[in-house]
Amino acid sequence: MEKGVNIGLMGLGVIGGGVAKALMEKSDIISTQAGCPIRIRRILERRRERATVVGVDATLLTDDPRHIIDDPEVDIIVELLGGEYPALDLIKEGIIRGKNVVTANKEVMAKHGPQLLSLAGDNGVDILFEASVGGGIPLIAPFKFDLAANEISAIYAIINGTTNYILTRMAREGVSFHEALSHAQGLGYAEADPRNDIEGIDAVYKLAIMATLAFHTEVGPQDIYHEGISRITSLDFRYAQELGYQIKLLAIAKRSGEAIEVRVHPTFVPEEYLLAKVDGVYNAVQVEGDLVGRVLFYGEGAGPSATSSAVLSDIMELCRRINLGVKVSHELHLDPTMSIRPVSDIETRYYLRMSVADRPGVLAQITRILGDNLISISSVIQKGQSPSSKTAEIVIMTHPAKEAAMMKAMGEMGELDVVREISNLVRVEG
Amino acid sequence: MEKGVNIGLMGLGVIGGGVAKALMEKSDIISTQAGCPIRIRRILERRRERATVVGVDATLLTDDPRHIIDDPEVDIIVELLGGEYPALDLIKEGIIRGKNVVTANKEVMAKHGPQLLSLAGDNGVDILFEASVGGGIPLIAPFKFDLAANEISAIYAIINGTTNYILTRMAREGVSFHEALSHAQGLGYAEADPRNDIEGIDAVYKLAIMATLAFHTEVGPQDIYHEGISRITSLDFRYAQELGYQIKLLAIAKRSGEAIEVRVHPTFVPEEYLLAKVDGVYNAVQVEGDLVGRVLFYGEGAGPSATSSAVLSDIMELCRRINLGVKVSHELHLDPTMSIRPVSDIETRYYLRMSVADRPGVLAQITRILGDNLISISSVIQKGQSPSSKTAEIVIMTHPAKEAAMMKAMGEMGELDVVREISNLVRVEG
Repeated sequence: MEKGVNIGLMGLGVIGGGVAKALMEKSDIISTQAGCPIRIRRILERRRERATVVGVDATLLTDDPRHIIDDPEVDIIVELLGGEYPALDLIKEGIIRGKNVVTANKEVMAKHGPQLLSLAGDNGVDILFEASVGGGIPLIAPFKFDLAANEISAIYAIINGTTNYILTRMAREGVSFHEALSHAQGLGYAEADPRNDIEGIDAVYKLAIMATLAFHTEVGPQDIYHEGISRITSLDFRYAQELGYQIKLLAIAKRSGEAIEVRVHPTFVPEEYLLAKVDGVYNAVQVEGDLVGRVLFYGEGAGPSATSSAVLSDIMELCRRINLGVKVSHELHLDPTMSIRPVSDIETRYYLRMSVADRPGVLAQITRILGDNLISISSVIQKGQSPSSKTAEIVIMTHPAKEAAMMKAMGEMGELDVVREISNLVRVEG
Repeated sequence: MEKGVNIGLMGLGVIGGGVAKALMEKSDIISTQAGCPIRIRRILERRRERATVVGVDATLLTDDPRHIIDDPEVDIIVELLGGEYPALDLIKEGIIRGKNVVTANKEVMAKHGPQLLSLAGDNGVDILFEASVGGGIPLIAPFKFDLAANEISAIYAIINGTTNYILTRMAREGVSFHEALSHAQGLGYAEADPRNDIEGIDAVYKLAIMATLAFHTEVGPQDIYHEGISRITSLDFRYAQELGYQIKLLAIAKRSGEAIEVRVHPTFVPEEYLLAKVDGVYNAVQVEGDLVGRVLFYGEGAGPSATSSAVLSDIMELCRRINLGVKVSHELHLDPTMSIRPVSDIETRYYLRMSVADRPGVLAQITRILGDNLISISSVIQKGQSPSSKTAEIVIMTHPAKEAAMMKAMGEMGELDVVREISNLVRVEG
């Protein structure tokens, strides 16, 4: 058994509490597998009562981060505060003081990952962040190591449990978005302010982290087009099922040549795809590589227990390295030739649903606009609504078309006086 | 860029050829990601024509393994000969001469893994074997590292592509086992002598490797109960579907307390499970851990390209370590308290199909035997066959029962003169 390793834990909230508990309850297996004892030396947490709730020694708590950053005995800072600030500054200061860092902070890693990795390299330490994406599902290590020989061509990810839970309830029970959101909030799967999840921001952070590693290029949140799920209605689910699709919030990153496209939006996924069968709060990430073909990683994407699994594996990895006297095991090698394609340049298939005047010649006007914009149609469903409303509903599935062309066509269709409403436009994969 | 690393490749067959090709074609990405150039220094292969087929310099070929083992310039032996001998001896000699080893050899690792890891540790080198299970799907690293903080409670694996392809054809098309096997052979998914796959031996090897890592205990092929798929008929598929199941060849390892059970056999899997949806030659491994919950890894389980992905990631990992001057990153810490449960002690649910005389009181005789053996029934289907045959078919699904009790009941039922044939007994999970 080698020299012990001391942890400075930042944050004793839900995740921090879970990690502290697991470290205490599983100290045997962790010490054996890591090859040395791991001790919590100090915990940054203002709320003193958290010590009792979690069951840690209250004297470990401090409200001054310097008690961790300046302590020469602390080998590893485990940052579980969440949010961009003050987490970012504390991580930076820790690195500069020669501490290794483990973090579950997707926002910090999405916005500042490459800079932090480079700062860590300069200071002879490492920053590990397996817990920042997909809870306990191994998703960072595969990109860094297991799939490193591959040229990755695509990532398709269901990477936000809240939205997947809501979409699953809507698909199964035909309930509205707002009803499904309330269910999710009641069960603790959605926060009181659910915007980060619902609008796809959380998925954007996670996709930025994965895409940066997979494509060896800096992808930040600002590079990723995103659309949330609140416009999806039970009607869209009915048409999707009629057409053989499920609707999922997909985070997509694709490479073609030296450019990548990165986007998060509701997506029609063919129902025979494994991704279409990922239900509830579960996450799944499908990766396509030139050697490995298609691989998929599936599991619980959040929660204190699953997240602890990843945080602890990162801590154990650092312990092994500290005892071997090794500093950094992985450097980000960026490929300067890669660029990010603007969303207007992407090409995909579309599902389009609109309300139109129920009279002759309407479909002809709409399809003419699509044709003029070089968008070809793969199928059309037209259904009369209540006779009194004198409107009909048209659903169109297109063949692959340019996003810019579709946006232009949407504008032109919106100006037709026979079009009452363009109800939804959803991109289609597969 | 650090000092280069020299490979001694053993075997230029399908897999070896794939690895050699990938090493040459992708030398840029591999060198960048590994941090140093990787060169093939020598190749053990008798068939000189393979050099032309693969496109490597024929002067690299040798038919004397000593040209690799005794060459002080060779840093890593990549063993892709397959089979137990001479691979085992060559690996051992290489380790003793201070070479790191990468192998895709499931038979060697299943039968001798712990000994080889210990020999490697004693000699200050490592043996990596990611490619021995599941092609390019990361399955070894997750047990060694990513999930290392977990107490693993179960592994359920579809880990043989040949049998999964055959079972998928049988399920979808209602064809017989032999017809599906011929299809598989025609497509190159099954070998001319398919016994290793069909009888579950290949899956036994892979399960032994995973269970040894997951449960920190030595599990060898001889410890694993196995049954092949050749007794499954299209009738079983029809009943399975009627009852809401798919039939898969599952490799199962479960822990309860300090004992584990390990077995490979055809299994009824509820059709809503993700594992039931893994079709064709694809593999999937579901792992359950106390922290991580349920995770699943899915992908192509075989083939030169997918296997190369794993072999190359192991080579790259060794390169990083050689350049850091680090020897071993992972040791097998065995838990001496763990034992392996005999199959007679397991408890599971069963599907039982039999032909019986079509006359009154038969079902009573059968169910009495089950009841006397404390096996309770969850459902029964009885169907008359052709009136002329005067036989009926009975299908029984049981609640969880002891394997020993079921075997005793099977013996007793077999002796009933009303029982024409016990057609099949298949274990049920979920």
